[in-house]
Amino acid sequence: MSAIFHAGISGYRGRMGRAVSQVLDAREDVVVAARFDWGETADISLCDVIIDFSTPDASVALAQAAAERGGPALVIGSTGFTAEQEAELMKAAEKIAIVKSGNFSLGVNILIGLVQHAAQRLDAQDWDIEITEAHHRRKVDSPSGTALMLGEAAAEGRFSDLADLQSKPYDGVQGERESGKIGFSSIRAGGIIGEHTVLFASEDEVLTLSHSAIDRSLFAKGAVAAAAWVRTRKTGLYDMQDVLGFRQA
Amino acid sequence: MSAIFHAGISGYRGRMGRAVSQVLDAREDVVVAARFDWGETADISLCDVIIDFSTPDASVALAQAAAERGGPALVIGSTGFTAEQEAELMKAAEKIAIVKSGNFSLGVNILIGLVQHAAQRLDAQDWDIEITEAHHRRKVDSPSGTALMLGEAAAEGRFSDLADLQSKPYDGVQGERESGKIGFSSIRAGGIIGEHTVLFASEDEVLTLSHSAIDRSLFAKGAVAAAAWVRTRKTGLYDMQDVLGFRQA
Amino acid sequence: MSAIFHAGISGYRGRMGRAVSQVLDAREDVVVAARFDWGETADISLCDVIIDFSTPDASVALAQAAAERGGPALVIGSTGFTAEQEAELMKAAEKIAIVKSGNFSLGVNILIGLVQHAAQRLDAQDWDIEITEAHHRRKVDSPSGTALMLGEAAAEGRFSDLADLQSKPYDGVQGERESGKIGFSSIRAGGIIGEHTVLFASEDEVLTLSHSAIDRSLFAKGAVAAAAWVRTRKTGLYDMQDVLGFRQA
Amino acid sequence: MSAIFHAGISGYRGRMGRAVSQVLDAREDVVVAARFDWGETADISLCDVIIDFSTPDASVALAQAAAERGGPALVIGSTGFTAEQEAELMKAAEKIAIVKSGNFSLGVNILIGLVQHAAQRLDAQDWDIEITEAHHRRKVDSPSGTALMLGEAAAEGRFSDLADLQSKPYDGVQGERESGKIGFSSIRAGGIIGEHTVLFASEDEVLTLSHSAIDRSLFAKGAVAAAAWVRTRKTGLYDMQDVLGFRQA
Repeated sequence: MSAIFHAGISGYRGRMGRAVSQVLDAREDVVVAARFDWGETADISLCDVIIDFSTPDASVALAQAAAERGGPALVIGSTGFTAEQEAELMKAAEKIAIVKSGNFSLGVNILIGLVQHAAQRLDAQDWDIEITEAHHRRKVDSPSGTALMLGEAAAEGRFSDLADLQSKPYDGVQGERESGKIGFSSIRAGGIIGEHTVLFASEDEVLTLSHSAIDRSLFAKGAVAAAAWVRTRKTGLYDMQDVLGFRQA
Repeated sequence: MSAIFHAGISGYRGRMGRAVSQVLDAREDVVVAARFDWGETADISLCDVIIDFSTPDASVALAQAAAERGGPALVIGSTGFTAEQEAELMKAAEKIAIVKSGNFSLGVNILIGLVQHAAQRLDAQDWDIEITEAHHRRKVDSPSGTALMLGEAAAEGRFSDLADLQSKPYDGVQGERESGKIGFSSIRAGGIIGEHTVLFASEDEVLTLSHSAIDRSLFAKGAVAAAAWVRTRKTGLYDMQDVLGFRQA
Repeated sequence: MSAIFHAGISGYRGRMGRAVSQVLDAREDVVVAARFDWGETADISLCDVIIDFSTPDASVALAQAAAERGGPALVIGSTGFTAEQEAELMKAAEKIAIVKSGNFSLGVNILIGLVQHAAQRLDAQDWDIEITEAHHRRKVDSPSGTALMLGEAAAEGRFSDLADLQSKPYDGVQGERESGKIGFSSIRAGGIIGEHTVLFASEDEVLTLSHSAIDRSLFAKGAVAAAAWVRTRKTGLYDMQDVLGFRQA
Repeated sequence: MSAIFHAGISGYRGRMGRAVSQVLDAREDVVVAARFDWGETADISLCDVIIDFSTPDASVALAQAAAERGGPALVIGSTGFTAEQEAELMKAAEKIAIVKSGNFSLGVNILIGLVQHAAQRLDAQDWDIEITEAHHRRKVDSPSGTALMLGEAAAEGRFSDLADLQSKPYDGVQGERESGKIGFSSIRAGGIIGEHTVLFASEDEVLTLSHSAIDRSLFAKGAVAAAAWVRTRKTGLYDMQDVLGFRQA
């Protein structure tokens, strides 16, 4: 159906890199042309697109190298970029096409839209928003990048910045809850793959929107779908809302 | 702030009628001008609007009486109308304004919009939809009217009729699940006020949208809000999506 | 069936005090003989039992006054006692009968037993425990007293003290989860009456035990049941496990 | 640590058979000595224990063949046995040791004990029990075998038989819920691995006990643990409560 394309994997020894490997190997329309980790020399000229789950530093270096050459396109799943690094990626995206996302699943990206929509319609004085997420015991940071993306969608629905609304986890005597704030809480336990819940509660009712991953391959499959999409773009910095065609909505 | 208006309560001895009574009594901008049950004579001429939680027969009779007089406006929360009775209400709505809904809560009506939106974007081949609801032990029918409204929203999102997609509760050896169908299941237990969940599941992920009532007064408050809205309309058959201003979206 | 008894309400203007008032007023076998708040003079000699939802200071003063007189019995629902105050209550309980509990519902007290049982059987190396609770926006402290009771039950099931196992809410870069710790997280939103969940997760499965209050009167009813039980005891410090007959199990 | 043993896999081409294969292959203390499907000739004399996920017919034939020879021990995960077939297995268990279970996970078997305990303490007049389960779209029967096991535990806690208490899924106008009945409902959607929930609800509160599988290998691992346990037994028909040492509790 679709033409064969050549893909590279950056950060291929990591958990996500290995998952991407498996998904690519199972597809008949993809040749894996390069696998490398940070600090390793790689011939990226053989690739139409590179899927990168590494570190902010490695991702920026890769984007700059690709921009210099005028390709390949990139799918970046690394998280934790500084504002300066974000700016570097935007600059690179003037020369190449990049999809950057904190979560490549279809379900989460639908959820982001629903959360924004609901937040817009549910008055901040009456409706409190709380975001909770659960992940396996090996996850070292919290809240998750996806929880923050959901928080940003909720804040955007209220025409605000998450930075102004995000509240710290409740602990000890914190007093009554402040209206308009967005609360976050995290669970770390066992092998939980990934669960996110956005709760809207008024005095009389609760609306709950949540996503749960069944299989760890979910995010790798989404990243590969993003790769198939971005390899035909020329330039620009995109996210999964673009890949899924939600942006124009 | 708003002018005082005169409200009537039809079916005032029922559970919802009594809840509406309490909400109306607590408002300073409302005078309760009539309370009556099916079969009782009532002077509806004193009312600007009547809130009616009775039976399909009683609701149709009330709508016809009001239409003849050219008022008052109606808020109808009765459920279980036949196609003929629906047609009678539409005819009455040429002369008076009527809001008719199976659920008057803001949260549920937001949920209806979110479900339709998600159903439209999640391919029926890959994503199965299941609707579950839980209510107290005294509820005599299932699925709930609200569950069916959610099912209709999901079907509409897939450009179909619920009648074609609704499947019976799984029981015994039913074989593999058919793609595109919408499943329903019900729980009846204790004093559960009302919970509705719409689940979208693919092979790798689950998206769950749900609503839970905290307080029984929720639906009465919504019906009263509908009354305040509809009393200034001249004619037409509306639902809560209109009252909440969601229709144009 | 049961003889009439005389009850007092300490802290009667508070949320719980008013709820207890309503429950007592609805019972035909109870005469309310005294209602008072901290600092008010009250003739406790007229009471067989006093239900007290006030403050640690007020509760200790009440217990001492009752102990001096040799009665009435007490049901104490105040929370936040220091070790010294706990010792004062134990001393008073040599002269009068006291039921003291952080949660008077049957369901929560069953849950406490189930949590201890499960914690004992699920190896701490393999199974992580996380306790989450959700309450209305007006609750000023976290985690809730009931969440801590559940944590103590879990710790006891592992033959440990909660003080050694309780971990702070995850926030920022906290590193991998430590085995054997018990995590806590809290949600504050809208009018949520009270929800508690204890989650046990291994690499491959999750066991979840949770409790949800449907009606605010739940805890008042349980406190009144405790009052009916304790008024026939002579001395001793009891909790709801005793009232419900679970202690011998 | 433990001595090497020889295992066979009956039904090895099925979903569970392949999962068991993977788990056995990953263990250093196991040699897989035979793999076969129904109708295939197999030399079971090489095995210390056989793990069998096939059909009732195949399982009974295997048990009879093993009983004739005086070994090997069996772990049977097939479901849907008739009373006659159950009797045949009991007869075979006079000559060999058999573990038979509808669910080999530790968490579900803990849950069974908790459900029985809670059902015993929560009065049937006041507390309604509802059991719900969710599985992938390929599951052809409902309720699941595990849901029925949980229902039996609940019925046993009330000193009754599930056959007398089980009610059909609510559908249409079923009238008010009958006290003491145990309701069942099923969800079939996407790739959901397996979720079971037992809900106890009174007028004022809800207690929910649930289990969720994170990884499909969960049940295979449990079956292999049962194999390691049963291979040292001489005769008898056991279940996972025995394997986990819960029976004497």
